[in-house]
Amino acid sequence: MRNIKLVLEYDGTNYSGWQIQENTDQTIQQVLQEALEKLNKSPLKVTAAGRTDAGVHALGQVVNFNLDINIPVKRIPMAINRLLPSDIVCRKAWEVPLEFHARFDARGKKYRYRIYNQQIPSVFIRNYIFHYRYKLNLDIIRRAMACFKGTHDFRAFCSSGSQIKDTVRTINDFVVKEKNGELWFEISGDSFLYNMIRIIIGTLLEISAGKIKFDVLKALLDGGDRSLAGFTAPAHGLTLLEVYY
Amino acid sequence: MRNIKLVLEYDGTNYSGWQIQENTDQTIQQVLQEALEKLNKSPLKVTAAGRTDAGVHALGQVVNFNLDINIPVKRIPMAINRLLPSDIVCRKAWEVPLEFHARFDARGKKYRYRIYNQQIPSVFIRNYIFHYRYKLNLDIIRRAMACFKGTHDFRAFCSSGSQIKDTVRTINDFVVKEKNGELWFEISGDSFLYNMIRIIIGTLLEISAGKIKFDVLKALLDGGDRSLAGFTAPAHGLTLLEVYY
Repeated sequence: MRNIKLVLEYDGTNYSGWQIQENTDQTIQQVLQEALEKLNKSPLKVTAAGRTDAGVHALGQVVNFNLDINIPVKRIPMAINRLLPSDIVCRKAWEVPLEFHARFDARGKKYRYRIYNQQIPSVFIRNYIFHYRYKLNLDIIRRAMACFKGTHDFRAFCSSGSQIKDTVRTINDFVVKEKNGELWFEISGDSFLYNMIRIIIGTLLEISAGKIKFDVLKALLDGGDRSLAGFTAPAHGLTLLEVYY
Repeated sequence: MRNIKLVLEYDGTNYSGWQIQENTDQTIQQVLQEALEKLNKSPLKVTAAGRTDAGVHALGQVVNFNLDINIPVKRIPMAINRLLPSDIVCRKAWEVPLEFHARFDARGKKYRYRIYNQQIPSVFIRNYIFHYRYKLNLDIIRRAMACFKGTHDFRAFCSSGSQIKDTVRTINDFVVKEKNGELWFEISGDSFLYNMIRIIIGTLLEISAGKIKFDVLKALLDGGDRSLAGFTAPAHGLTLLEVYY
């Protein structure tokens, strides 16, 4: 038995997120696990670094699983890709120590949130970018982004579905790039609360619009109230870029 | 009554091409016409510069139609986009002279054919690019592309479904750009035969693989036999970029 680590790229549009759930549409974990079980010829369980929500994409999701059959590691991506639908692709595979765990060993993650800030939407990227047609003030957004960096109590940036008690998190980096009418927000941190990035983005948009003031933002970042933060930006703008170990 | 010209962008993945057909799945013309009839509150007919095939995309398709209602031209794109599905978008609208005809007045067209020349496919562009994993010889491809330029009898580069007698066409420009593992073939000409660009691309790939020799290519470009040319590259790699008037 070997422990195998994979890097996955997927288009989350047609899935109910990563995690297998009862009585739901198909999930990425389920489709991947079924493909890997065909390869392995016996049941196995796949663990991901992070459970992406419905509609969220990945360029660099990391998973691991135990493989019984003998196949050279470098042939694993092609072998799996033949068994996967075209919206899930395995980019790389490694053999890792048996104790490696994709989730518990992850030290950090990097995400990208894309906003298309033009009057008219773009057809070819419509499933991967949030179309926001109103004028944005990038100076104000950059000033607000600086406030998010560092360690804060992000309780106000967590959807109510979460059971988590400790809502203190650290954002290591938070930048925005502008290109051809697109804004790419890239954020990295040790870990993120449920919907945290999407609420941060929604809050930035409301700060730009003047609906949320900087003094309110400061209070929000000190364990403030969810209802005073911004809306939850749509899932399809979000992509998991990289997992750090 | 005014004559209105539109520039359209569409993702052809879920359509049976441009033209309305009986007993078929939905077409772009049909969906657009239904949206415009809602706007116009009475029937109308839309004419396109070119009839794209099933799976072919457009960044700059041009259409025209006669509009009865009074609406400022600059408000037309937003008004139509509200009535269209997310895979068809109107980018611009103009009022043009009543005699303007999107198809008969077109003097030329420019298309892009995208090839993803990497071992492992890319999830997010999978519907817009042909994944070709075998090694390509770009020097040979560029030499062959030069042979296509100018006026030739392209009979060998026309699918048998076509009724057209005059198969002489002129290719004004044909270039290839390489970027991040993608090849973008851009071709412009006065007009193109049925499947002509896709057969040209298939032929280039077979020339690169050494299956079609340069002396055969020369004969093909002089009204040669379809069976000696390359395969028809898949529709989803092709995008109509621009129509010249």
